[in-house]
Amino acid sequence: MLTIKKAKKKINAAILIIGNEILSGRTQDLNVSFISNWLNVNCGISILEVRIIPDIEKKIVSNILELSKKFSYVFTTGGIGPTHDDITALSISKAFKLKYDFNNKAYSILENYYGEKNFNDARKKMAKMPNGSKLIYNPSSAAPGFMIKNILCLPGVPSILKSMMPNLKRFLIKGKIVKSKTISLQTVESKIANNLTKLQKKYFKNIDIGSYPFFRLGKVGVSVVLRSTSDKLIKKCEIEFLKIVKKSKIKIHC
Amino acid sequence: MLTIKKAKKKINAAILIIGNEILSGRTQDLNVSFISNWLNVNCGISILEVRIIPDIEKKIVSNILELSKKFSYVFTTGGIGPTHDDITALSISKAFKLKYDFNNKAYSILENYYGEKNFNDARKKMAKMPNGSKLIYNPSSAAPGFMIKNILCLPGVPSILKSMMPNLKRFLIKGKIVKSKTISLQTVESKIANNLTKLQKKYFKNIDIGSYPFFRLGKVGVSVVLRSTSDKLIKKCEIEFLKIVKKSKIKIHC
Repeated sequence: MLTIKKAKKKINAAILIIGNEILSGRTQDLNVSFISNWLNVNCGISILEVRIIPDIEKKIVSNILELSKKFSYVFTTGGIGPTHDDITALSISKAFKLKYDFNNKAYSILENYYGEKNFNDARKKMAKMPNGSKLIYNPSSAAPGFMIKNILCLPGVPSILKSMMPNLKRFLIKGKIVKSKTISLQTVESKIANNLTKLQKKYFKNIDIGSYPFFRLGKVGVSVVLRSTSDKLIKKCEIEFLKIVKKSKIKIHC
Repeated sequence: MLTIKKAKKKINAAILIIGNEILSGRTQDLNVSFISNWLNVNCGISILEVRIIPDIEKKIVSNILELSKKFSYVFTTGGIGPTHDDITALSISKAFKLKYDFNNKAYSILENYYGEKNFNDARKKMAKMPNGSKLIYNPSSAAPGFMIKNILCLPGVPSILKSMMPNLKRFLIKGKIVKSKTISLQTVESKIANNLTKLQKKYFKNIDIGSYPFFRLGKVGVSVVLRSTSDKLIKKCEIEFLKIVKKSKIKIHC
């Protein structure tokens, strides 16, 4: 595993979505887009890989071990609720050979939230996690997420996950924010492809240039996206690109 | 790599989404849910893993090699257009050490679609693919996808991808369709967790029971999903579960 100190220069992360319901197509994932945007804007952390895997212990263990070695952080979603198919905390404990046990703070939070009378075994299960975990507080429904080593575990329900993101910020080392500029054109990709290739070669490694066709109100167009940690470089590249666009007599899409 | 003949008994697949725009959160993926549902209903093929990776040749090569060994089929989305960041076909050619060259049929289709005069180099690029590929016809925008070994390459734009799915059916060996039954309840997960655990233990390996909380019109509820290739077993399990629900005085959510 990367130690956090070593990762200081370039902070990256993976998302591991744990859930049969996403794989089967029953549920549309909405967390990848939210987490990725949020981490970039708030912490300068870029998501470099996402995996969606089933609720199977062996799969969770192997993916956690692999991704935790490859990335500064791994964000998991799903599998931390009270039912039999919620096995994320147990599986991560096994992956790192840590005791899977009650976290006292989490136990108190949940006992206080549900009241002693309604704090049944299923609810108590949500206080069990790998020994040594730090809690990620949950302002929506009490049951906390947790961080262990470089893994941060979040629930699958998007509204609850969103409410918890600000509470994990304090655990993260910040990197450089990737800024982006989108220029939408009234053209097709093949008409700008050669110029984009030249521009990408010129700004190699400093700017990532993406080209995405779109269809809006029956009209085709292309969004060209310039991405970089340097505002100055994006501005320079944008001016250069707009000159090419003008010369090619391509109209900007409003 | 699994030979297709060997994979006959249990046909599974992975999806490899290639695209910086999905990883950065700029674009919401809609293809996983569609492909997974479509493959199950039309071909009895289950998606067991999804990965989202950037437009980087080295990453595409390593993921293609790894996933093609692990699964009966791998469906890729994205990176088969005309611009510099469309490197899926080239990367797959490199992965399998195959010549990356013009496919005559694809060349003819594209030349016919654009007309000789407008068939520029960027558009010609869309006819280049690993030597020996079979074409997946595209009724929306002509540029075909392709199948090489057990990899099926599709575009990233959801509407175009959807229109191409029926055209790849002929390449696939069919498995057993997973049926599902959803029972939505006016309760919370912790109140049914113990009974679900017992039921899952009883139907171990024959039925996959999932529990998913939901929030609709300000009310909480739980959807219990029974999934199996056997309609008969689902019915049996459903009857048993509904008895438990009745006994527990939990109301069905209409």
